[in-house]
Amino acid sequence: MTTPWKLAARAEKMNPSAIREILKVTERPDVISLAGGLPSPQTFPVTAFAAACAEVLATDGQAALQYAASEGYAPLRQAVADMLPWEVNPDQVLITTGSQQGLDLIAKVLIDPQAKVLVETPTYLGALQAFSPMEPQAVSVASDAEGVLPEDLSAKAADARFIYLLPNFQNPTGRTMSEARRAAVSAAAQAAGLPIVEDNPYGELWFDEAPPLPLTARNPEGCIYLGSFSKVLAPGLRLGFLVAPKALYPKLLQAKQAVDLHTPIFTQRMVSTVMRDGFLDRHVPQIRALYKAQRDAMVGALRREMRGLDVEFNVPKGGMFLWLRMPEGIDATALLARAVERHVAFVPGAPFYAGEPDARTLRLSFVTATEPQIATAIAALAETVREALAHRAAARMQQQQLAAAA
Amino acid sequence: MTTPWKLAARAEKMNPSAIREILKVTERPDVISLAGGLPSPQTFPVTAFAAACAEVLATDGQAALQYAASEGYAPLRQAVADMLPWEVNPDQVLITTGSQQGLDLIAKVLIDPQAKVLVETPTYLGALQAFSPMEPQAVSVASDAEGVLPEDLSAKAADARFIYLLPNFQNPTGRTMSEARRAAVSAAAQAAGLPIVEDNPYGELWFDEAPPLPLTARNPEGCIYLGSFSKVLAPGLRLGFLVAPKALYPKLLQAKQAVDLHTPIFTQRMVSTVMRDGFLDRHVPQIRALYKAQRDAMVGALRREMRGLDVEFNVPKGGMFLWLRMPEGIDATALLARAVERHVAFVPGAPFYAGEPDARTLRLSFVTATEPQIATAIAALAETVREALAHRAAARMQQQQLAAAA
Repeated sequence: MTTPWKLAARAEKMNPSAIREILKVTERPDVISLAGGLPSPQTFPVTAFAAACAEVLATDGQAALQYAASEGYAPLRQAVADMLPWEVNPDQVLITTGSQQGLDLIAKVLIDPQAKVLVETPTYLGALQAFSPMEPQAVSVASDAEGVLPEDLSAKAADARFIYLLPNFQNPTGRTMSEARRAAVSAAAQAAGLPIVEDNPYGELWFDEAPPLPLTARNPEGCIYLGSFSKVLAPGLRLGFLVAPKALYPKLLQAKQAVDLHTPIFTQRMVSTVMRDGFLDRHVPQIRALYKAQRDAMVGALRREMRGLDVEFNVPKGGMFLWLRMPEGIDATALLARAVERHVAFVPGAPFYAGEPDARTLRLSFVTATEPQIATAIAALAETVREALAHRAAARMQQQQLAAAA
Repeated sequence: MTTPWKLAARAEKMNPSAIREILKVTERPDVISLAGGLPSPQTFPVTAFAAACAEVLATDGQAALQYAASEGYAPLRQAVADMLPWEVNPDQVLITTGSQQGLDLIAKVLIDPQAKVLVETPTYLGALQAFSPMEPQAVSVASDAEGVLPEDLSAKAADARFIYLLPNFQNPTGRTMSEARRAAVSAAAQAAGLPIVEDNPYGELWFDEAPPLPLTARNPEGCIYLGSFSKVLAPGLRLGFLVAPKALYPKLLQAKQAVDLHTPIFTQRMVSTVMRDGFLDRHVPQIRALYKAQRDAMVGALRREMRGLDVEFNVPKGGMFLWLRMPEGIDATALLARAVERHVAFVPGAPFYAGEPDARTLRLSFVTATEPQIATAIAALAETVREALAHRAAARMQQQQLAAAA
């Protein structure tokens, strides 16, 4: 006799994370993966963390291992408020178990089934997955290289609960919203009474100049802001935060309590200790320099290897990702299997679209692989594209022959 | 112009955690709190954790700070499988950010709005809070000192998604399900096709003999089992786990990915390292001995101080909590304000009931306060009860006089 488990309707719709499934394939050691969004582990301040662990446990070990406040560790909330470029009260800061958890809490508090939520085209896949259990209708707002188009935002804003935006070095495209676009988007959202959920995990990873002010700084009462320590310190601690208007904070806090009571206090104290005395001001420039060099290596390799192949790509001004568009008729998902045969992996762009996907797109990370690996991988990718183009040409020839014969 | 945030219907219904709000009041340093469920910090193996942190960072620091698998750290999953008293495949173990997160994942995967979920009378408040955002109809199953009554379970099982049970040293009552009751409940659930969600955070904290086998061991395919490292190592790391049937595991994993990608890998490695070489076999008996002495201190104080006051209480065989029932006509929630005036705090029982609450009940923790504090606190609580009884007598006298005068 087996017990009949009945799944919730939302669970019937859950599918394995497309990216996770792909990453499994690409974990083979002979594959150079440009797929994952893994920060370069050489940027992790291992020594500083070791000192912080020892200090926290030696000076306040029992408190660092006890249950703690759902809001987060007070000195860390203060540090977050201090580092943000607008007036933030630490009481508005909620420490989260990764910024991914912030998306889950926001979904619980703001999304009713079938409620409309606006997203970029394309958008961060993890946000779509976090929102999905609350069963929203995710609506894609037309976007260009500078982010969402304000006119399309205005056209689609009616009855939407919020628009989810990732203005800096976006995942997946690597694009950044310009100052003019931010002003226009902020104004359009305010005019429409549309709240903004602003996700900024990569903002500190700029290469030549800091990105413009966050959207939240322009209208704090109309925005929830999400940040993360994953890209400036280490992702394995799962530490992020959100900044919410006072009216919303209690509901997000209650959702947080129900989910995990509080974010691990030991890791909060580790990070709070490491961050003392301006550590990030010395540490983050090293990450920027490394990632800029790796971006340059990838852009150089792409310019060299993709010449004549009709492959489009951007030159991100920061972050971790670069966005490619294959020639007409080349499906990036189909291309992946061929690429893995040539020992290189990437993430197809299709899962990042809430609406109709552009099947020709794909995402490359330039931060996980080393410069020599990047050169090898891009050459292999170019070979894969060349092969796909040859197949395309052969198929077209065959079609023409068939048409001529008919 | 302010931006109109529209809350989801489920968020409109969210209320501040009753216990958290009470705990705020009781954080005053002059109050002895028997309210919180905080393990005694002197049981936290601070030195062992310090050694583990140093070792993990020295030997594999970069991997311990990188993104990691959503399923959890493989050696920790293996250790969990090895320590459970039935045949568990590590592939069925999902490491969670506290066992509270397990409840959130289960709710997402199994609860549709208005779906029926069965719980004990009373039940763990945190479970009600975790389930609540998925908007179930929580139905209270009649229970006695040995746990839920199988007949009432059978009567209410139709269309229920699962029954949530905490068989060992239950929060809030401290009661334990007997072997005979486990056999009957397991048989009744299987006969009704009713899945069981078994929560076992306190099972290792037995005083004289280990509790009977978990319900899950009797029918693994019909149960999800939740466990925690909070009570045997430290709660501030937020590390728990669930064991799920193979058919359900992928959905729970997908829900986990959407929530926080994975549980912090650094703390998983800390615990995995600390647990090597049978550490828990040496460590947990010390916790048992301490908590048993504190239970004895509280039971002794209650017998001494509550004599003649018509206060009922149990003698838990393990865990952290003891359950009191006040004399007829005494409301425990009203009593709390008076008790705090006498510098002692507890948790009223009412919020732990999914159905009609027994307003005379309250929960005491015997693990956080020291033995002398327990003696002082119970004496103060008895004074509070005595005062309430005097008020009750005066009120009754007045009523009788009014009745006689009428």
